[in-house]
Amino acid sequence: MFELHPALKKKDFVCDLDLCTVLLEDNAAYPWIFLVPKLPGIHSMRDLTHEQRLCLMTEIEKAETAMAALFHPVQTNVAMIGNLTPQLHVHVICRFENDPAWPGTVWGENAVPYAPEVKKEIISQIQHALKGEPNV
Amino acid sequence: MFELHPALKKKDFVCDLDLCTVLLEDNAAYPWIFLVPKLPGIHSMRDLTHEQRLCLMTEIEKAETAMAALFHPVQTNVAMIGNLTPQLHVHVICRFENDPAWPGTVWGENAVPYAPEVKKEIISQIQHALKGEPNV
Repeated sequence: MFELHPALKKKDFVCDLDLCTVLLEDNAAYPWIFLVPKLPGIHSMRDLTHEQRLCLMTEIEKAETAMAALFHPVQTNVAMIGNLTPQLHVHVICRFENDPAWPGTVWGENAVPYAPEVKKEIISQIQHALKGEPNV
Repeated sequence: MFELHPALKKKDFVCDLDLCTVLLEDNAAYPWIFLVPKLPGIHSMRDLTHEQRLCLMTEIEKAETAMAALFHPVQTNVAMIGNLTPQLHVHVICRFENDPAWPGTVWGENAVPYAPEVKKEIISQIQHALKGEPNV
């Protein structure tokens, strides 16, 4: 049975896609989401079938497109790391030339959480963008 | 016309796949290759067509499989960053619990170059593994 790793269970739920559940990283410095395949026992992409990998890439494309339409990043970092949290989760992170870690990577930086109202609004915006709906 | 970014041109050539050219990171601490789509003007995955993305994922699968068969990592990090080198290049990095950056990420660490003979041998091994050939 699919279950989120405890470290991922703490993240805010955004929405479900066909293969993946989408979660928000609570860090106001970067628009940053995760795609987590809703399948049991997936430690890394090596545990996916070829078809599941292609489906994952299709959902990464959808996520990148939605995040770019909302936030207009100068670059989008997409990464599967999983050293500390060994359940496959794809980072999709909007990067800007004035963000705190630019041009370095974001991992290991301290997170600045969103104000609750801002987080609610960001989640709603991402939900709508991922569904291709206008944000009402 | 496709041309490697100067920062990628410095890397050692491993072999060509259908979509990507494969390069080696000269860092003896981590078996680490790059996949670079042989297409002009590709800043990030957002510049690929859907079909090219699926082909890239297929070649990432091939690369992960080859690297895992050779090096038996505990985790494989796969990442598209491109903040400093804005030409799409996919990092495929074998990670081990006793590697210098574990469990952190490898970017920003100082590289320890391979001894020339070791590098030649590693490139040959990866070439053969990517082609599904025994290393002779």
